[in-house]
Amino acid sequence: MYIEKINSPRDIKSLNIQQLEVLADEIRSGLMNRLSKRGGHLGPNFGFVEATIALHYVFDSPKDKFVFDVSHQCYTHKMLTGRSNAFFSDEHFGDVSGYTDPGESEHDFFNVGHTSTSVSLACGLAKGRDLKGEQGNIIAVIGDGSLSGGEALEGLDFAAELKSNFIIVVNDNDMSIAENHGGLYRNLKELRSSDGKCPCNLFRAMGLDYTYVSCGNDIARLIEAFRKVKDTDHPTVVHINTLKGKGFEPAETHKEEWHWHMPFDPASGADIFTGSGENYGDMTCDFLMKKMKADRSVVTMVAAVPVCIGFTEDKRKEAGSQFVDVGIAEEHAVAMASGIAKAGGKPVFATHSSFFQRTYDQILQDLCINSNPATLLVNTASVYGMHDITHLGIYDIPMMSNIPNLVYLAPTNCEEYFAMLDWSIEQSRYPVAIRMPCNGVIHTDVPVDTDYSDINRYKITQSGSKIAIIALGDFYQRGEELAKLTAEKTGTAPTLINPRYITGIDEELLEQLKADHSIVITIEDGILNGGFGEKIARFYGADSMRVYNYGLKKEFLDRYDAEDVLKENHLTPHQILDDIL
Amino acid sequence: MYIEKINSPRDIKSLNIQQLEVLADEIRSGLMNRLSKRGGHLGPNFGFVEATIALHYVFDSPKDKFVFDVSHQCYTHKMLTGRSNAFFSDEHFGDVSGYTDPGESEHDFFNVGHTSTSVSLACGLAKGRDLKGEQGNIIAVIGDGSLSGGEALEGLDFAAELKSNFIIVVNDNDMSIAENHGGLYRNLKELRSSDGKCPCNLFRAMGLDYTYVSCGNDIARLIEAFRKVKDTDHPTVVHINTLKGKGFEPAETHKEEWHWHMPFDPASGADIFTGSGENYGDMTCDFLMKKMKADRSVVTMVAAVPVCIGFTEDKRKEAGSQFVDVGIAEEHAVAMASGIAKAGGKPVFATHSSFFQRTYDQILQDLCINSNPATLLVNTASVYGMHDITHLGIYDIPMMSNIPNLVYLAPTNCEEYFAMLDWSIEQSRYPVAIRMPCNGVIHTDVPVDTDYSDINRYKITQSGSKIAIIALGDFYQRGEELAKLTAEKTGTAPTLINPRYITGIDEELLEQLKADHSIVITIEDGILNGGFGEKIARFYGADSMRVYNYGLKKEFLDRYDAEDVLKENHLTPHQILDDIL
Repeated sequence: MYIEKINSPRDIKSLNIQQLEVLADEIRSGLMNRLSKRGGHLGPNFGFVEATIALHYVFDSPKDKFVFDVSHQCYTHKMLTGRSNAFFSDEHFGDVSGYTDPGESEHDFFNVGHTSTSVSLACGLAKGRDLKGEQGNIIAVIGDGSLSGGEALEGLDFAAELKSNFIIVVNDNDMSIAENHGGLYRNLKELRSSDGKCPCNLFRAMGLDYTYVSCGNDIARLIEAFRKVKDTDHPTVVHINTLKGKGFEPAETHKEEWHWHMPFDPASGADIFTGSGENYGDMTCDFLMKKMKADRSVVTMVAAVPVCIGFTEDKRKEAGSQFVDVGIAEEHAVAMASGIAKAGGKPVFATHSSFFQRTYDQILQDLCINSNPATLLVNTASVYGMHDITHLGIYDIPMMSNIPNLVYLAPTNCEEYFAMLDWSIEQSRYPVAIRMPCNGVIHTDVPVDTDYSDINRYKITQSGSKIAIIALGDFYQRGEELAKLTAEKTGTAPTLINPRYITGIDEELLEQLKADHSIVITIEDGILNGGFGEKIARFYGADSMRVYNYGLKKEFLDRYDAEDVLKENHLTPHQILDDIL
Repeated sequence: MYIEKINSPRDIKSLNIQQLEVLADEIRSGLMNRLSKRGGHLGPNFGFVEATIALHYVFDSPKDKFVFDVSHQCYTHKMLTGRSNAFFSDEHFGDVSGYTDPGESEHDFFNVGHTSTSVSLACGLAKGRDLKGEQGNIIAVIGDGSLSGGEALEGLDFAAELKSNFIIVVNDNDMSIAENHGGLYRNLKELRSSDGKCPCNLFRAMGLDYTYVSCGNDIARLIEAFRKVKDTDHPTVVHINTLKGKGFEPAETHKEEWHWHMPFDPASGADIFTGSGENYGDMTCDFLMKKMKADRSVVTMVAAVPVCIGFTEDKRKEAGSQFVDVGIAEEHAVAMASGIAKAGGKPVFATHSSFFQRTYDQILQDLCINSNPATLLVNTASVYGMHDITHLGIYDIPMMSNIPNLVYLAPTNCEEYFAMLDWSIEQSRYPVAIRMPCNGVIHTDVPVDTDYSDINRYKITQSGSKIAIIALGDFYQRGEELAKLTAEKTGTAPTLINPRYITGIDEELLEQLKADHSIVITIEDGILNGGFGEKIARFYGADSMRVYNYGLKKEFLDRYDAEDVLKENHLTPHQILDDIL
């Protein structure tokens, strides 16, 4: 196999086109080995094999620098830069992440996992090169729906100001994670169907030079195109048309399903682990479908990740105009939700905790200053959420809960979650965010409140004395365990509290606790800094009440084991009780 | 005067073109009256008089709905919707804000002050209208550099998906606050010079219908154009070429200087109040100019507000390629700064606290996960910063200080500020943000540290006992006053601490304080929730130390008096001491 002899990009430069094509096949077998056993971004990687080979053939990494957008298409790049073991040897799977990582290789320049950042990051590399009088090509790769993201569009617009070498490879596979959304994709289609000759051209309209390659999986044609732009003295777009999932028939046919995939049988494409039982994605979808059918003014919104709340293609069709996928455009989504609410509609916008980070200003300015009653569903906001450093869901409490006017709710079980969601959709007074539970679907027989308009009213779920445990959201069950353990060990039942509201404190209840409690413990599923517990610590700051805040340390985690992290942060009920006693 | 008889937009519909032109002159006299005495956005309002008259003449507000971007061009709209008193009667100046405000009028739909939001907000109004089966035109107005902002570009891209009436008026005055930046403005120029006929068209490339009006200050031509798009069934851009500052010669000539202006003499254009003495804008510019001359790898970056750090046109020219104005594109700026730092450059990006809100995700993902040593200068981050609800500088501590890896510094005087800035530029380990002082230029004779690499090391500036005062950043002087007062009233000198680091706590020092202190007071210039003091409260949560956190309440303020707000929050030294004793 050629791949066995490739330790650096230099090693592919002596191969001829036919050999490179064989190499592409070998790479796909490596991709298949890792992805079928471990899961990951299948479609993006399978589609970008030839382009990556051609890039490394023409350019000289790391002197020439590649910046991959999202970097979920970088597996071939990893294989060609000395990391092929992590694809062919199962015991080395753990050596590499699913994204570029400067800690792994001198050929990776950034830890990247969010969309739409490559052009701006690469503009920085180009500017740095020019300031220091250095040489080399800077190549940003972008595609897969990322173009519609505000950061990417800002970057494209700015790139035209560079007066030196800068190459943007637009990997156009006619897809986002789901189908593309937005007018610019019509222009990409026009460009594809006119072989790049259509005079109305988004990239030229942004002030950039432009070239088109129709066969983005043809190594020879790609090499030819990249050679033409190598060492040029101005910014250029190379628009290449690739086939997402190329080389694996199920992925070519069902692109959305195979964008990211769980482990599967390579022969049949069948999932190895099939999910069973309830999940909040499907349940949220069912709930919203019912609401939408009953009320034409309810509208569900997503930003390119519809399946995070269960909206598969059939559900999207069924919802019709009451379902809006804005594409990768989270800022737009939040502002638009504010507008819909202002007009009397009832918008629910859902995305991941990590992706809400794009919308801090829109939540504060467009939504909360205007107090419009939109609902934000914050998904995978938990230590149990996504485990890559670029997708952590543990920062949303400090980010969102300190914004005035926002009501941020933390349900503790399934019934409470849907009661909160229902209340939020039907009320017309507050912008509301709901932290979707992330600890499995837990049911309760205890009736839950249906009205949450008495803001910041915590709920005592077990009355006791001496110790009060305030257990937020999906760490409520942890609080229950701690309460049980405390009663066992101390002989006194503690008070257990479901605070429900992340955005404020129940001063009356906290005041009352002073009467027969000397210890308050807070537990939250996120970093402590700027979070929920610190507000309780501040409240009791000048009192004799002893306050212990439990949550996560402020740090970046990467590919972690949740239970290990919980232990390191002393978050098991035994650890907490030991600390206090 | 016609304007005296106009109480609602209906009242202008009976006027003929000549009368409307007289009305425009009257409106300019109202603008001049208010702006010359009170200051405000001069250029944007003078340039948009005719377009606003034509919009209200053709459309039927509030059934037809206008959403103004930034809304700093909405003064004529205010005059035509029953608020002309606030322009002609000096005693009524305070009746209106400088932006649209639903609290003022049914013709205003959003409190808006940040750029690039109108298209997305208006998309929401359009979607809400359609969901509810209502009628009416939705018109988003955008221009003045706002098009380059990511949120606007996301909105433009999405707008093409609407299948109903939606009108985007692009107010093209060939300017941002300073000159425009970005490739798309070249396309606007091509469109202007081809009378809108150039086949490469950004708006068409975004999937939108398009029409061009060359004379954007000609009421008759504008009326004609708006009539053509009224009640159309799909999204359309009306690109109008206006003259910024039209009708006031100094503003037509010096567009940047007159974008926003302090009170002035209407005859000569001369400023009424001339600034004297030192200011951090000019001093920061001088400092950075020296750094840049000494080191070619230092680069100053701004996003359309160069003068906030003193970079007037002559200074920008002098700095040459070491000065980058990315235009309104804050997300891009932070990501690009990360890239420059990665490439070995030394970037300093400055903007207002309120505008950094656009970049939460870029600070966390593009910059801090990658630990690249870029410097962020956070301006007007204070209760003494900008006083409009949309421009408040009191939320940056909770937003930024809880992001891992970031070192956020709070200088307490001029010498410390520049020492921190110098250290930050020269170090290569941390992403650093610096909270520019906002309480006047205060000097010190006490030598300041030059090395801040021993992260989270607080500085005891006065040793005492019983009470420790931790006074952050530009509230340090407030801490000094409190210390003096405390010594006077209690007979015991307290300890005074300059914490310097917002992003972490000095556990060793806080531990030591336990020996001979029973009270810790924190004082910070921002909201308490998620802020600095709460971290101190958490540290001492389980101890007997009494902790008092002083800062601002979590709320939206609008056009406030800073001293009143400080009193309401018990932030005067006398109030603090009274609380504690």
